Amino acid sequence: MNRSELINQIKTKKTFLCVGLDPDMNKIPKHILDENAEDPIYEFNIQIIDAAAPYCVAFKPNNAFYEAYGLSGIESLEKTLKYIKKNYPDHFLIADAKRGDIGNTSAMYANAYFKRLGADAITVAPYMGSDSVMPFLQYENKWAIVLGLTSNEGSADFQQVTFKGKAFYHYVIETCAKWGNQNNMMFVVGATKAPMLAEVRTIVPDHFLLVPGVGVQGGSLEEVCKFGLTKDVGLLINSSRSIIYASGGTDFAERAAVETQKIASQMKELMKNI
Amino acid sequence: MNRSELINQIKTKKTFLCVGLDPDMNKIPKHILDENAEDPIYEFNIQIIDAAAPYCVAFKPNNAFYEAYGLSGIESLEKTLKYIKKNYPDHFLIADAKRGDIGNTSAMYANAYFKRLGADAITVAPYMGSDSVMPFLQYENKWAIVLGLTSNEGSADFQQVTFKGKAFYHYVIETCAKWGNQNNMMFVVGATKAPMLAEVRTIVPDHFLLVPGVGVQGGSLEEVCKFGLTKDVGLLINSSRSIIYASGGTDFAERAAVETQKIASQMKELMKNI
Repeated sequence: MNRSELINQIKTKKTFLCVGLDPDMNKIPKHILDENAEDPIYEFNIQIIDAAAPYCVAFKPNNAFYEAYGLSGIESLEKTLKYIKKNYPDHFLIADAKRGDIGNTSAMYANAYFKRLGADAITVAPYMGSDSVMPFLQYENKWAIVLGLTSNEGSADFQQVTFKGKAFYHYVIETCAKWGNQNNMMFVVGATKAPMLAEVRTIVPDHFLLVPGVGVQGGSLEEVCKFGLTKDVGLLINSSRSIIYASGGTDFAERAAVETQKIASQMKELMKNI
Repeated sequence: MNRSELINQIKTKKTFLCVGLDPDMNKIPKHILDENAEDPIYEFNIQIIDAAAPYCVAFKPNNAFYEAYGLSGIESLEKTLKYIKKNYPDHFLIADAKRGDIGNTSAMYANAYFKRLGADAITVAPYMGSDSVMPFLQYENKWAIVLGLTSNEGSADFQQVTFKGKAFYHYVIETCAKWGNQNNMMFVVGATKAPMLAEVRTIVPDHFLLVPGVGVQGGSLEEVCKFGLTKDVGLLINSSRSIIYASGGTDFAERAAVETQKIASQMKELMKNI
């Protein structure tokens, strides 16, 4: 999916919500586990996807939650990706894999996620530098989403140390931005650091930002929009746990729909400011 | 495997070689592809493993080379790990996955690789900080191998920039070392940067270092040992392509054995210096 298609989706649907598909066997409703012994993760996912699709523009499965269950987990992931591609081809599909390796190895990851699995984007760790990121920029209408400033406490350890008078994440975003452009690169900036979004916008005024941390992690949608919204919206705000585990009962999909709709209607209001 | 068991293996076998299992369908000998259509990667791997085992103390499959082939690739990886665990339980088993995510997600990766797959160690990307690394330090006799100074050109972009008068990787290694100890943490330091090993040894004089980049990438075994060897050896030197693709013919396993034996005999000589 290219940038104008993504912006068009957002402006048409009046939402820039990304739903994180992070299934956890300990949190999936009991009746799903009982009735779908063969692949409860997939069954859980497709019900969440169907419920949330009208109110979001992107889905983001995090690989860890699938790798945790080995082969069967990977199978659930691949089936989930295929389900989204087939039934919701207009939704932006992000593989939250946080990959990054030496050049020839990153190229293998890029091929796997973009060509074989059909993801539109993959999250990428920047520490290994240019040749670890650039293989993800070689595919038309595909995106590398580079970790800039993450939502966790540990972001203080390296990302926020002062380097050349600014935070180190500033230098990382500034440097990585030179390897790509606003049509093939986004950055992860955590919602828990909303005021820093103003600084990020001085570096990459037009790039899309993937913003996790709204919901359970405590980030505020209004704050994020205040500092991060652009004329093209420029934000994909991810929420996962607060949506997919809104209820642990038989009404989990309905409750997920209610939650996503609630966020989407807030987003619609906030979009009036641009 | 704990530190003293690892050191014991190294001193008994007089080798500190780690063999990287990075199978590439375009490089696997033709007869393997013809004769083992069902799982050529696994067949290739087990022949390499059997050939190399007497001359090495560790194996390191890199996930990218398996994820590239989707479900069947992951199946090959899991079978390979099981084969090593069963037939070579005294070999140190490294999952080269370069994972790292927010705390609860890193915890899922740790569980997957240590408990379910039985790896002794996993490579970890440090950019997301303490809570992304520490879940890998909670398992007895298991190891996080943190990316310090990698062997690729891109290491210049962030790892080698000057921070507080030293290279940034210096600060990363120094900081991460505080989260663990020499019994549950190692660092990746590329062989292509051998002289910098002397500096790394000032930060972590006793930690084991995983050193990729000897062989095709051009690193020198002698140089690495000159600057990195400790009284406990303290090095696992990885070689992959120069061993596993020593021959593209029916003699690939024999040639892999010859290559590993050659490196092991050099290592035996170099160990005389400690």
